[in-house]
This record gives sequence, structure tokens and C-alpha cells, in this order.
Amino acid sequence: MVKGFLFNGLHAGIKKTGQKDFGLIFSTTPAVVAGVFTKNWIKAAPVIITQQTIRNRFCQAVLVNSGNANACTGKQGMLAARSLVKEAARHLQIAADLVAISSTGVIGVPPPLQNMTDHLPPLCEGLGPGKIEDFAQAIMTTDTVHKVVTKRGTIGKKKVTVAGIVKGAGMINPSLATMLGYIVTDAAVKPQSIQSLLTEGADQSFNRITVDSDTSTNDTVLLLANGAADNQPLSKGDAETTGFKDMLFSVMDGLAQKILEDAEGVTKVIEIAVRKARSKEEADRIGRSIAHSPLVKTAFYGEEVNWGRIVAAAGKTPFPIAFERIELAINGIPLVRKGGIIDPRNETLAQPELRKKRLTVELILNHGKHSATVFTTDLSVKYVEINAGYKS
Amino acid sequence: MVKGFLFNGLHAGIKKTGQKDFGLIFSTTPAVVAGVFTKNWIKAAPVIITQQTIRNRFCQAVLVNSGNANACTGKQGMLAARSLVKEAARHLQIAADLVAISSTGVIGVPPPLQNMTDHLPPLCEGLGPGKIEDFAQAIMTTDTVHKVVTKRGTIGKKKVTVAGIVKGAGMINPSLATMLGYIVTDAAVKPQSIQSLLTEGADQSFNRITVDSDTSTNDTVLLLANGAADNQPLSKGDAETTGFKDMLFSVMDGLAQKILEDAEGVTKVIEIAVRKARSKEEADRIGRSIAHSPLVKTAFYGEEVNWGRIVAAAGKTPFPIAFERIELAINGIPLVRKGGIIDPRNETLAQPELRKKRLTVELILNHGKHSATVFTTDLSVKYVEINAGYKS
Repeated sequence: MVKGFLFNGLHAGIKKTGQKDFGLIFSTTPAVVAGVFTKNWIKAAPVIITQQTIRNRFCQAVLVNSGNANACTGKQGMLAARSLVKEAARHLQIAADLVAISSTGVIGVPPPLQNMTDHLPPLCEGLGPGKIEDFAQAIMTTDTVHKVVTKRGTIGKKKVTVAGIVKGAGMINPSLATMLGYIVTDAAVKPQSIQSLLTEGADQSFNRITVDSDTSTNDTVLLLANGAADNQPLSKGDAETTGFKDMLFSVMDGLAQKILEDAEGVTKVIEIAVRKARSKEEADRIGRSIAHSPLVKTAFYGEEVNWGRIVAAAGKTPFPIAFERIELAINGIPLVRKGGIIDPRNETLAQPELRKKRLTVELILNHGKHSATVFTTDLSVKYVEINAGYKS
Repeated sequence: MVKGFLFNGLHAGIKKTGQKDFGLIFSTTPAVVAGVFTKNWIKAAPVIITQQTIRNRFCQAVLVNSGNANACTGKQGMLAARSLVKEAARHLQIAADLVAISSTGVIGVPPPLQNMTDHLPPLCEGLGPGKIEDFAQAIMTTDTVHKVVTKRGTIGKKKVTVAGIVKGAGMINPSLATMLGYIVTDAAVKPQSIQSLLTEGADQSFNRITVDSDTSTNDTVLLLANGAADNQPLSKGDAETTGFKDMLFSVMDGLAQKILEDAEGVTKVIEIAVRKARSKEEADRIGRSIAHSPLVKTAFYGEEVNWGRIVAAAGKTPFPIAFERIELAINGIPLVRKGGIIDPRNETLAQPELRKKRLTVELILNHGKHSATVFTTDLSVKYVEINAGYKS
């Protein structure tokens, strides 16, 4: 329960499987809103519309469908999304510019407008404060579990809740993932402070995870704060904002980890920490180069201590690195130490570590002071199977 | 047969399978030489040595082993490679600075120097003009077939032969591939003209193919011209150089196509042509973004008409594109035309095309005059299996 927020999710006939595919979040009063969106040049119709909608910093409803991305659908897609927003506003008796909209699923197929229009009345009428899980189920695509993270705390003497819902699974990459995420809180936040809170949190969570380097046309994360907790509205510099940030960032980090753990075909989650780089950008780019390397990812899937592939992937960016300076460890077991081949017995020691579900790769470049961490997953046979058969 | 060139290949005990893993090319007279090498910052010992060796523009022998990359092997690796060069020179009775060396295989494992040293005498003694296939077999790693392309022609009235040998298979990406390539010709080429011929040829062939975006530590292509055909030495502007270039480029292109056709786990070769871009760089970057997208590659493996993934991959580079202007066709069947969803029946028409082994994706951006073509392969279950189990 998050005070003043209602949820719903149902099957509107978009997914052939009969699973839930149409969801709604409603705040009983207009909430302050912030959003971060895909950086892909090809943006889905609902992304374009929601970017405009939230400019006025208020939002009261979020309408989401899965099973169809409404991306690359031209004028027809824009008209459909606008029509849905208008219809939802009418049923909810609020202004259309308070309705955000998102879609996820197959690209390039016209959205099934009729199905959704027909199911708007039951979707609105069935809203309830305890139905956050129904909403979370309705936004899933290849996710195998629905994903909700909730934190409770106090601001001043007021009890506050932050709840987040995401879907992830594939097409996960920096500048968000093919992910939709909605974070709702009953905390009061000043309109001029909410965007920087969300942006900072996204940079530390969703923007640090990458499954397959593919950036979606639909990525959207919204933060809605409706103030029902009745706290003094938070603004950027406040002492109390720090406590709220901790809750918010912990929800966002929890959601990001859930996306990784449920990535398509995942068998392992890998944390890649690049240290002592010349700049944060260098550390980040090298980390992502490792995270995106099919050879590194398949080696992890094979549970092999193939550190050579990690070093080779680190060396292919425009940022010069020297093998003579590098140190590399997996789960704390050193495998490379400044240009020499380390005792091969360490590879034997590392072998059982590779069977674990969580791995940490630490690459120390030893030519600077900056660090970056990127999270990724392995590349499995199942990933290929899922993505080779997803559309059909 | 290429006049004045001898070849050999044998098993030196490096590969556990008992297959050939040690090869030698020898020119009876010093040949003019050019080379192109990996752009990875982490370079294997033989790459560092050969880059130095060919600076004087002459080379008489090329020693290659497979099964061990001698990369990330520190001082020990450099000493081993230098020792092999010296030993080979001694057996062949030539200067050590006329011996190039290459390695391919697992990274980060000390090279089995003793095995190779022991097998140098039979490798040198067994050299023969007809043993090019033995050499081609000796440089294979996960290649399933050995790869030789030969062209014959005339320069002036002299008969000339160009023969090329490559190995490829995985870790194939721009700025060469995990590939080793050797092109030998009996044509006479002026030392000051040979490098630009090779570089131009590589840009049009090997640098246009990408299997998995991973750039190897060992990539090497050498061109040796020993002048045994006795033609007037070719120099850059000559009319006769054009004819030679045609032969040379056709050999290089043939080799590049062979690498694609034998890529790890490949079921399809895909040509991606990006047209009407603002610049050649833009066309190239967008082409590679599509070629590297795991979602695009798995969709091709699944024989699905998932053009949405192609458009999404095109949109994730820093170069702005507009869906409203884009046209996209697969094997000539238009699927997207300037911002609208095209007749869905075209997807049905395209379906049987997707089952072919050769596909052409044409993406027209319609905002400039520049084009680029990139060749890639699909991403199959077998690719993952090969690379998850390669080391063990």
C-alpha cells in the first residue's frame, strides 16, 4: 500500500497467451512527476507523448500495455496512443495531460487499439490500493517473475512509502534498458526537485546494468510523488531529503538487481568493477566493453576462467591500456598481476567460484584514480532461443 | 603454386586433438612485405615482434602456430617468440629480421616453446611448393574448413599468381578479425607501394566483416611479394597496378567471405547496406550497430522478419535518425517506407527469404549521400556452445 495510489492489471487480449497485458496506476490526487526515457533516436509513440505530458510536472495516471510496443508504427501509432490517453482521462474524470502512457512488446506492429479501448472501463473500475502485483504482472514481456520493491520510512514524523515496479528481461542496456519502471511514493516532493532525484537515482541503478547492449525504443522510468503522507515537501538541499533519497535509491537499486536476476536466459549476474582509470568515462567504457563482449559472456556461461577474453575486451576501446600494469581478479582471486602470468594454480582456485550465480570481476588499470561499476549477465543458449523465437 | 614460395604445416603437439598446429611460409628470395594488425591495445607477443620486423619492408619467412595465442603472456611470451624467430632463421639460414611470426588460440597461457622448437627442423625440412593446404590447416582454430583463395593473371606479359590463406571463425570484428591472413604473390611490387595496396584492400574486405564485435589481440594480415614472376616492379600510379589490384582485392574479398561462411555457429551471412547517410562514418557506425545487435542476430537465426529490431539497433548510435524518413528492405522486399507501417503482407512475402543462407538488409536513411556496407552473421545456439566450451 502506498497512500493515495490505486493499481490494476488485466488481460485485454493483446498477448496471445491470455496473460495480463494492460495495467493502470492512479493517484487520487495529481502527483508531482519526473521521467527518464530511452536515448534511442527511434522513440515509440507513447514515449514521445509521455515526454510532453510530464513537462508540466504533474501526473495522475499511468496507462501501460505489454505485448505491443507501439514503436515504428507511424501516424497510426501516435493516433492510437493519443486516443487511449483521452479515453482513460474520460473514464478517470481527469485532464488528459495528467495521463502518462507506456507500451512494451513487439516493435513495428500496429497497436490493438480496439482491444485496449474495450478494456479501459473494467481497468479503471477495478482499481484498488492492494493491486500493485496485478499491475506488475500486466507490464511483463519475457520476464519470468513480476518485480516490485517497497521501502518504508519516516520523513519528519510522517510515515512514508516508496514502491517501485519494473519489467526488464531483454534489450537491456545503458541509457536505461528495455525496461519500464514506475516508482510511486506518498512523500511530498517539490516539483522543481523531483527530476534531479530521479535522474541521479537512475544513473546509479538502471544506467549501470546492461544485458545485451541493445537500447530499446520504449524505455521509460517515471517517479510519481502524491504527497499523501503529508510531510513538508522535500526539496533538493534539505536534510530530510537525504533520508528519502536513501529509500528511493534503495528501491531503484533493488529493481535494477531484479531485472538482472531475471534477464533473458541468465544463469549468472556479473559485477564488473574497473578501477584506477584515467577518468570515469574511461572506466565506464572499458567496463561496458567487457560487459558487452559475446566471448566474455559465453565464457561465463561456460563457467570458464577465461581471463584472456576479459583483457582482450578491455583492450578494444579507444582508451589505451597496458597489459604490464593491469591487475585482474574474479571473486577476489587474483588472476593477472602486472604483466606476468600469475601462478596457474589460481585458475584452479577460481574454478569453483565460476559456478556461483554472482560473480565480481575487478580490473585495476593502475594509471589513474577513477572507477566505474557495470552489472551484466552471461550469454546463454537460452538467451538465443528466447530471442530467436520471441516474435512468432 | 606461387613461384618461389614454399609451405608446410604439421602437428607440433600444441593442439590436444592431434591436428596440425605449426606452419611455415618461405620465399626462396626476400619478399617485399606489408602488414596490417589488430588495433586492440593488448597485443600478443608475435604481433609486437612482427610489426617491428616488417618495418624494413622485407620478409622471407612466416612462422605460425595455432592452439596458443601467446597473448597476455608477459616477458615469457616475448622471449619465447623471439627464440622461435631466431631458431627458424638459423634453420632456414636467413637473417632473423626476415622472419615474421604469428600465433592464434587461447589467450593467457604460456606458449609451449619446447614443442615448437623441437618441431622446427621437420617443419623447415618438409617445405614444398605444393603444400599450401598443409599450411592453411596448421593455422586453423575453430575453423571447420581451411581457407585458400588463388587468382592468376598477367602483368605485362608475365604470368602472375596471388594466393591467400586465412583462418577466422570467432572474435571477428572491424579493425581486422580474430583472423590471421597471408597473401603471397610472385608479382614484383615496389617496397614503397606495397603497404597502401594492402591497407586499401583490407579496408574493403576484412575490415567490413564482423561476427561478434570482439577484436582479437592477435589479428595479422601480411602481404608478401617476391618478384619471381619477373614483371616490372609495380608502383602505386601504374596502369598495370590496377590489374594487380583487381586480383589482390578479389583474393582478399574471397578470403573475407570464406571467414563469414565459416564463422562460429553461423547459419546465415548477412550483408547490411546503409545508404543516404550524412557521412561515410555515420553509415558505417549504424551498419555496425545493426551487425552487433544480439537481438538482430538472434532474430536472423530464428528466421524472423523482425525489422523493428533492425530499426531500434540503427537508432541507438550517437547519429540521429528519423523513422519518418527511413526505408528498409530485406532481400529486396520493402518492409518500411518513410514512417508508415508497410503492407503487412510484405512480411509474409519476406518470410521465405529469411530461410536463405545469404541475406541483404538495405537501410536507406534519406538524409545524405553516403553509404557503407558491413557483413555479419547470425547468432546461433551453436555460437554460444562453441564459445562456452572452447577453452576446456
